[in-house]
Formats: sequence, C-alpha cells, structure tokens
Amino acid sequence: MMFSMSMLSMSALDQDAYRHRRVMITGGLGFIGSNLARQLLELGAEVLLVDSLIPEYGGNLFNLEGVESRVRVNVADVRDEYSMRYLVAGQDYLFNLAGQTSHLDSMRDPFTDLDINCRSQLSILEVCRKINPGIRIVFASTRQIYGVPDYLPVDERHLLHPTDVNGINKMAGERYHIVYNNVYGLRSCALRLTNTYGPRMRIKDARQTFLGWWIFQILEGRPIEVFGNGTQLRDFNYVDDVVTALLLAGICDDMYGHVFNLGSEEFISLRDLAELLVEVNGRGEFHQVPFPPERKVIDIGDYYSDYRKIREQLGWVPTVPLREGLRRTLEYFQRHIDHYR
Amino acid sequence: MMFSMSMLSMSALDQDAYRHRRVMITGGLGFIGSNLARQLLELGAEVLLVDSLIPEYGGNLFNLEGVESRVRVNVADVRDEYSMRYLVAGQDYLFNLAGQTSHLDSMRDPFTDLDINCRSQLSILEVCRKINPGIRIVFASTRQIYGVPDYLPVDERHLLHPTDVNGINKMAGERYHIVYNNVYGLRSCALRLTNTYGPRMRIKDARQTFLGWWIFQILEGRPIEVFGNGTQLRDFNYVDDVVTALLLAGICDDMYGHVFNLGSEEFISLRDLAELLVEVNGRGEFHQVPFPPERKVIDIGDYYSDYRKIREQLGWVPTVPLREGLRRTLEYFQRHIDHYR
Repeated sequence: MMFSMSMLSMSALDQDAYRHRRVMITGGLGFIGSNLARQLLELGAEVLLVDSLIPEYGGNLFNLEGVESRVRVNVADVRDEYSMRYLVAGQDYLFNLAGQTSHLDSMRDPFTDLDINCRSQLSILEVCRKINPGIRIVFASTRQIYGVPDYLPVDERHLLHPTDVNGINKMAGERYHIVYNNVYGLRSCALRLTNTYGPRMRIKDARQTFLGWWIFQILEGRPIEVFGNGTQLRDFNYVDDVVTALLLAGICDDMYGHVFNLGSEEFISLRDLAELLVEVNGRGEFHQVPFPPERKVIDIGDYYSDYRKIREQLGWVPTVPLREGLRRTLEYFQRHIDHYR
Repeated sequence: MMFSMSMLSMSALDQDAYRHRRVMITGGLGFIGSNLARQLLELGAEVLLVDSLIPEYGGNLFNLEGVESRVRVNVADVRDEYSMRYLVAGQDYLFNLAGQTSHLDSMRDPFTDLDINCRSQLSILEVCRKINPGIRIVFASTRQIYGVPDYLPVDERHLLHPTDVNGINKMAGERYHIVYNNVYGLRSCALRLTNTYGPRMRIKDARQTFLGWWIFQILEGRPIEVFGNGTQLRDFNYVDDVVTALLLAGICDDMYGHVFNLGSEEFISLRDLAELLVEVNGRGEFHQVPFPPERKVIDIGDYYSDYRKIREQLGWVPTVPLREGLRRTLEYFQRHIDHYR
C-alpha cells in the first residue's frame, strides 16, 4: 500500500492493539485525521470520524476516497455538547485532532479561535469525564506553543510563550487535557506536532502550513514565495510518522498525563526546502519576497525539536526522509489536485 | 491615613505620575481594585471603576465607603464589548483586575471561568487596540499558573503547568496581554500576584483566598480548619504593597511586555499562619482536618516566589510585615464585618 507506515515504525506498535477497538477521531476528515483513520482500518479498528466540515479548516470528504464504506462519519461540531455525548459513548479511544490551525486567522478573529481551541476542548473533556471516563485520549498539540525558541533544539522543558492567539489557545487546550488526566483520572496525553506534511493536507491556502501552499503553487506552475531571507530553520514530519506516534501514544498506559515533542533530525532552512521541493518536482521556481508584516510579527524564527523523550519512552522515530516524503506528497496531489483546490 | 502605602514603597513612585490621569480599573469594586482606587485618588487621578458585581466574585459597593463621590462607577461586564468600547475611550491607564478567582468553581463550571478569564480578556484587549491603542495596561495575573513548583523560590523562568482550569485560563489571559503588546504595540504588562490579603478582601467564602475565609471564621468565633498537616509553605503580600507594585508597573515604559512575580521573604507554613492569626487576634483556635479530596487534587504544595525581577527593575519591595498586615486586616473587618458577610 502506497502510504502505509514504514516497517521500522510499525515494529514498535503491537499489531493487535487496535483490533476491534472503537476509535473516535475529531477532525477526522482532515489531513492527519483521515490518514490516521486509514491506518486504524488497516489495524482492524472500528473508526468513527467526527468533523465540522467548516470550510476554513482541514475537513475534506475526498480524504476518505476508497474507504468511505469502512468508516462511520458524523458531521458535527465539537462545541455541540449534545452530539458529543452521543458520539463519545462506548468509544475506547479518542484522537482529538479537531482544531483551528491558522495563526493569522486567530489574530483576525480571536474569539472563533478561542471557541474552537479552548471551549471545544473543555466541552469534549467534560463529556468524556461524565459519559465515558474509561476512554483513552490523545490530543494533537503543536510546537507553536513554545513561541520563539530560547534554545535549540526545543525539548519539553522549554518555557511556553506563544507568539499569537492561536498558540495561546492551543496551549490552554493541551493543558486542559493534562489537568483532566490529573484531576479526574481521565487518561489523556498530548503530542506537540511540528510541521506535518503529506497526502491529504490542506494546500489551497497556508492555513495549515506554508508548505501546503508551496506545494499548491508549484503544482499550479506558479513560483513559490519565500518570506525574508529564507534562512529560518524548520523541522518536518511526514504524516505517516505522525500517525505512528499517535497510535503509539494511545496504547501506552504509563504515558498518560505526559506531553511529547515530535520532530526530526532533518531540519532545513526555508530556502533550502524551496530548492528541494523544486528539485523533487522536477520543475518550478521560487523567489524571495519581503516578509509580510502581519506574519513577521508572529514568526518564531528558527525552530527544531528535541524529540528524545518520545524516542526513549515510546520507541518512536521518524522514518520517512524529507525528500521521499515530498516525492510521495507531490505524487498524491498531482493525481488528485482537483479535489484540493 | 490608616491604609496608605508605607513611606518606603511610596519613595519609588513619582508622586505626580497619576495626577489628572484617567485611570480605569476592571474589577474596580473588588478587593484589590478598590484599594488601588483609593490610592489613585490620593495621587490625584480621575478614577473609573468597572465591575460586573457578579455575586460570586469580589465586587462590593461598601469597598468604596467614604470615597463614593470621588470616583465614577460603571456596572458592566467586561464581556460586553459595546460597554467596553464606550468606557475604554479616552483612558490613559487600564488596571485589568477583573477575573474569576475560585479554583473549585473553575472545575465545577469550566465554561464560565473560560468566559471570564479568557473571552473577557480578549474582548477588552480587542477594544483597546481598536479604540484606544495608546492606553497602558497592567494585568493582574497569578502565581497559580506555575502549578506545583519544580523548585523554590519560583522565578519568572519557571515552567507554567497549572493544576486547574482556573490556572490555565489565567495563564491564557496573561499571555494575550503579552501577545497584544508584542504584535500590536499595545503597552501591556502583567504582575503574577501571590496570596494577597488586607482590608476589603472577600471573606465570606474561600473563593479569593483561604486566608479570607480563616479571618471570617476567627471573627465569627469559629475554629479555623487547616487542611492536611499544615506544613505547606505560602507567601503573602499585604494589599497596599500590591497596589504599589501595580502603580509602579503602570508607569514604567520599559517594562511593557514583561511579567513580574510579586512575593515576600516572609513565607510561612499554613499551620504557623493559623497560629499567628489566632495570636494577633488575641483569641480563637484552629484544628487540622483531612484535606478535602477535590481540593487536594489541585493543591500546589509548597510555594513561594522569587520577586527579584520587580525589585531590581522597578524598585519594589514588600513593606508591610505579615503580623502587622494581619493586625490591620482584622481591625478593618472587626469594624465592618456586617458588610462582608
């Protein structure tokens, strides 16, 4: 299968851990949610996808292409407590991936970001504790909550001082999960994702990540715009590796109440990334443009993660090199771009 | 005047800094807000007090006794953006003290806590940036956002890992102020208050601090209940010292974007505090009771602050010793307890 996890990652995961288990994914029609759903189907899970399909977010029904009949889809907003009470009942696992991811949108409309990234999280945690306290929860947090790094690579002991409203609200959303774990014994942990890319990502704008937008540009034959001098460093994870990390976190009972960085040893400057993307694509071009002021003021500068904690505790390592991941991603979108415009 | 600031604290403050300046205080009818208002009147400011008078919070009209005619009072909820637009216009300073402070209430009703401590803060910051971007803002944050200390004394470099929903939301509220400072150039800073006590505190329950409740018990002739073994350490600031810190922070232009711990060298175990309170009061008793489970699970253990940063940067030091502060507080409530039941 084209996008299955590599053998190396898979080796750390008990192949029967999710068989016949009931698994709910919020944001399940989105980029990571749909890739996770596909892997869970491979592992024999019963998968329920919950997604609001809000147009600015990542949900896309095409992400289920080929597996539509094997999953249950419920369109609902996580903020809707009554729907959630019904949906959460009887689930063994919750992968809580629903969220607003755009930094710029969070500055333009901080109240919606608050609703999605804070109120919704409280809502779903309250429902879990009341209706299904035995559920196991993995929350998708983000390296954005560190803000401008005080040191590199950034480990989990780094201070949290996010640079924008989205980062603050995601920080609160993550902390709710840990507090509900500690106070109510609800088993909950969080992964702090860095830049994730791969098939089914949102590419029609930069709301999920600038890399999606770059991929869209290059496939449309337009030049990539690199902001500023392009020397900022970033690390990237291919989505299959992130899916493996989520699956490993879900079944490791000792790790509830913990947070884990994801990351990669392959960090790269944005300029070099643009060059690599053009090279892998076989054509295209990029040029450098001045940093838009509204982005500059919330930019985090250089960033890459120290992910030793998850490597040591859960045996996770990223396995798909950037060049190979980009190749797979471009190939996917070359075939399916009409569904992602 | 009985409750004026000490000469030592005052010496660091330019006596003309607030003269004829327009100053708005949210939570202005509350404990710290009303004490701040009184000091601002002494300094010649034009004071506008905004308070929602929600019964569970700290607002109490009696807190203005004797100065009612010298301040402007507007009863409004900070969540009400239209009222805020009108009120914020033309103000030189905003002391943003409105908040929900009860840890237990935040666990019982996390959504209201979110509304008050997050949505309201975003609302008022949005109004400031749109209507009055030249305003200077001081936000009352709390040591609660540190959670269980990793080390003592706790300085501003300590990780934020609050133990309850209230702590998480206050953390977000503080961070919004810093992000709006950094992104929009709105001048905003935050003080992380530790246990504050003094005249006009809420004593009829433990929603502001357990010490208020203790004071109420002892004045009513009932025994004080000390949870657990009473060895947990805490530090305390008398309210006049906190008022001085707020006033100093407001006028120090270099310090916007910063956060500062308050604190005291006089940290004390809860058991010793109970003993001291009985001694200063001249009668009363305390006994130790098992820690209520819902409190134990969010308790932070030992805590005291490192407040060197504000001492070095703003010249602030606490000046009222605990024994003297307790004496003044008991004297105030002996006279006025009927207004605080």
